[in-house]
Order: sequence, then C-alpha cells, then structure tokens
Amino acid sequence: MSMPLPSTPRELRELIAKGEWTTPTSGVLDDYQQANLAVVPRAHAYDFLLFCTRNPKSCPVIAVTEPGSPFIEGKEGQIDLRTMLPRYRVWAHGALVDEPTDLTRHWRDDAVGFLLGCSHTFDAPLRRAGIPVSGAAPAVYRTSRRCRDAAGLSGPLVVSMRPVPTDKVALAVEVTSRYPTGHGAPVHIGDPAKLGITDLSKPDFGVVPPMDEDSVPVFWACGVTPQLVLPELGAPYVFSHYPGHMLVLDQRVDEMATALS
Amino acid sequence: MSMPLPSTPRELRELIAKGEWTTPTSGVLDDYQQANLAVVPRAHAYDFLLFCTRNPKSCPVIAVTEPGSPFIEGKEGQIDLRTMLPRYRVWAHGALVDEPTDLTRHWRDDAVGFLLGCSHTFDAPLRRAGIPVSGAAPAVYRTSRRCRDAAGLSGPLVVSMRPVPTDKVALAVEVTSRYPTGHGAPVHIGDPAKLGITDLSKPDFGVVPPMDEDSVPVFWACGVTPQLVLPELGAPYVFSHYPGHMLVLDQRVDEMATALS
Repeated sequence: MSMPLPSTPRELRELIAKGEWTTPTSGVLDDYQQANLAVVPRAHAYDFLLFCTRNPKSCPVIAVTEPGSPFIEGKEGQIDLRTMLPRYRVWAHGALVDEPTDLTRHWRDDAVGFLLGCSHTFDAPLRRAGIPVSGAAPAVYRTSRRCRDAAGLSGPLVVSMRPVPTDKVALAVEVTSRYPTGHGAPVHIGDPAKLGITDLSKPDFGVVPPMDEDSVPVFWACGVTPQLVLPELGAPYVFSHYPGHMLVLDQRVDEMATALS
Repeated sequence: MSMPLPSTPRELRELIAKGEWTTPTSGVLDDYQQANLAVVPRAHAYDFLLFCTRNPKSCPVIAVTEPGSPFIEGKEGQIDLRTMLPRYRVWAHGALVDEPTDLTRHWRDDAVGFLLGCSHTFDAPLRRAGIPVSGAAPAVYRTSRRCRDAAGLSGPLVVSMRPVPTDKVALAVEVTSRYPTGHGAPVHIGDPAKLGITDLSKPDFGVVPPMDEDSVPVFWACGVTPQLVLPELGAPYVFSHYPGHMLVLDQRVDEMATALS
C-alpha cells in the first residue's frame, strides 16, 4: 500500500497520529524544521537542560514542554508529542524496553519533553546552494572529543559527515552556520584522525556516501550525541524519537535561521 | 586616587578581588567578553535556566556553575564569582537588601551562578565597523512585548537602543548578528511606538545618546530583561551584578562569535 503524500507538516502529523504514516520523516517536507525528541522526568530535567546548554552545537533546544503536558503549540494547531512522531523508543532504568508508534500509554505526569534541532534542517539549504547531499541517513561517528560534562552527564561528541567538493567547503560553512537549529557550522573539516576516527568507511551509524578525490569530509555535531547520554541520567524512564522518525514542525527552515541567537 | 590600569581581564579581576578596582567595568578592556551575573538557589535553577532557554536573545547563557561552587574555570586561571566583580546586588525574598563589593559572606551551599551575555560585547565590533557607539551606558527601555513565559516567570522584553546612521543600519545588523553572547541581531529597527515606547527621550535606565536626523533608533534585547524576572522566582535569595559592574572574561569578543551556535 502506498501512503498518501502530505503537503504540509500539519497534514503529515495528522496522518502519523492516525497511524497512516509509519515510515521515516527524513527526506520528507525538506523545507521544514524537523526535531529530535527526548522526554525525561521533571526531577532530571535540569541536568539534561544544563547538558544541552553546555553543548549547544550538539543539542540545540527548540522547545521544552511544561511538566506532564505532552503538548506544544505549533503555528498550525496543537502538537501532541505522544502521537505525532511515527515511532519512538522507550527506556526503563537505562534499558531499551519498547519501540512503539504511540507514546500515550507510556506518558507520565512528570514527563518533560525536549525538542532538539536536527541536522536534516540544513540539507535543503545545502542543496539549494549547489552542494550535493545524499537523501540517505548521513554517516555518523563517535569521536574522541568529549562533550562538556553537566551534573555527571558525559559522553563523546558524535558527528555526522558529508563529503563536500573542495571548492565548496567555505560555502558549506557559510550556509550551515546560519542554522543553529541544525547544529550550525561544522566542528571539523578534513582529516578524520583529528577526531579519533580511524576508518571513514566504517561509521557507527548510517551509510557512507560515495566520496571522490575532489571532496573533503566535513563533520557537523550530531543529534545522536544527547541520545548517548540519556541512559546516563539514571532516570526511571526516558523516551525519544526512533532514529529517522522525527517531529516535523510548521516552521520553515529559513525562519529558524536565527531562532537560537 | 587614580586606579592602576589593568592590561588583561585577569589583572582586572585580581585588582577587583583585592578591592583596588571599584568602578564600573563598562568601557574597560573593550575587546573582551563581559558577563552579567545571576545567582539563584538550586531549587530554582531549572525555572531560571528554562526562562533563559526560551528567551535566548535576552538571556544568552555563557556558563552555569555547579551547585554551591562559586568558581568557573577561566582561560587564565580560576574565577571566583564572589569577589571578581566590582559590585553586587543581594535580594532576600524579592527585596533588595544589600549592594556589597564582595559576595563571600552571602554565598550559600546551594547557590548556582549563571553568567549571561552582555550587549557591551558588540560595542567594540560596532566601532571597528565605523558605527559610532557611545561609551556611556546605553538607553534602556521596557517594551510592550512579553518574554516567553517559563515556569510562571514572565516579564517584559527590555531593550537597549543605539542610534545608527541610516546608511549603516544593515551593517549594524550584520555585525551584531555574529555575537549571540551580545544579544545578537536587533529585535527592532525604527519606530519606537511599535515596541510601546512612547517617548524615546525618557528611557527607563541609562542615558539617551545624541540623535540626529540621519540616524535610526535600533533596538537590541537587553540583559536587564532577566533581572526584572529574578524577583518573581520566589527564591529566598538571589544575587546579581550591580548594573555596569560585570565580570570580564578572558575570551576575546571575536572568539565568542559562534559560542552559542
């Protein structure tokens, strides 16, 4: 069965809530801001927010819900974080226990939802600038760089890599630095060894796009970074989006250019 | 008695800690990042951090201390938040009770210090770009715009105003948008009435610089914004810097250009 093709984020969210859209959101409605989700108990919310504050390139905070409320106000109607992402992950005391398509029965009275920026945000601006970007999930690597610790939370900086033609590297920096909600400017350009990456062909997640001799590997902070520290919170429960299955917001990517600054 | 003139932020902080520098920091060591201070009990830290997160232009967070610790690591040695600002304000249950030059006897075991960006940060880059900026405290106004609420904290957006020659307004936007730790790009350009400011000659704080007919009033989010909400925290104590008496950090302003993105 082929799924209906939504023309707006609201339409897509409604399809998802009805169970009529179950596939990834990456590559869909390219011009709109997508967000990663992390839900933690109120008692752990300060620790997680502080970690995000200290690591803004990896964890750009777009929105935080009131404790217990699964709702945020979209520009086009209320957004229910329990049902409007296609798939979730549920952890109990640090162990993955479920990957449901609906969070309703898991939701708690003290749950605080964090929407975090996603590098999907600058794929469309990169393409518009003439920089080829694969539609597939980017290659993602753990690095030897550490995040700044917060309240005992620590972890490696995780990066996504896109090959950029040598003559367009500066342009790629300029374009992505305009999107703090898409992780902003690169954290590293060139030699993977400087990040402790020994073999570019073996990413920890995702797919390595074809690289030719005229391309340079360019590395951006990645939304997987906060996901690796979530189990360290020591929280009784944590929810997140399932990889590739994000929340699509009503804001166009270009409206978000200065959202965090 | 004339005070010795420090040549680095570290020297200035040491003079301040010894009680040998008691005057404002505004206008001093222009090329270095200065920070506003807000100290709140750990029990109120999440509410305040969330308010800052939701209002990043008014409240750009540069650093947050560990609960109880008055120290942050500067690039040039440890910084003691209790002694290295020239003057402080102390509130008890929302009432101003002291304006000491040293916070040591007020400090608490559960105190969390927030360093917030300061518009002083972009005065030097504006001057280097040929845009005249007064050395005096800028004119500051409460506006009719509301901040985004967080955990019951709410207040008006407070702005600082600088007159900019008409042919340099776009340049002023470009220059300041590079400094998120200096409140970033303007929040408004032109007609003060759009912000609910009825008389530009009567600021709520500071001094109105001379304005000629070829200048346009340009408004930036201002660090007074968080100070107005601090009493609303309902906290038993709150400490802040005394206006104009900030912490001078070791980072040059231009190092901070992308610090928050």
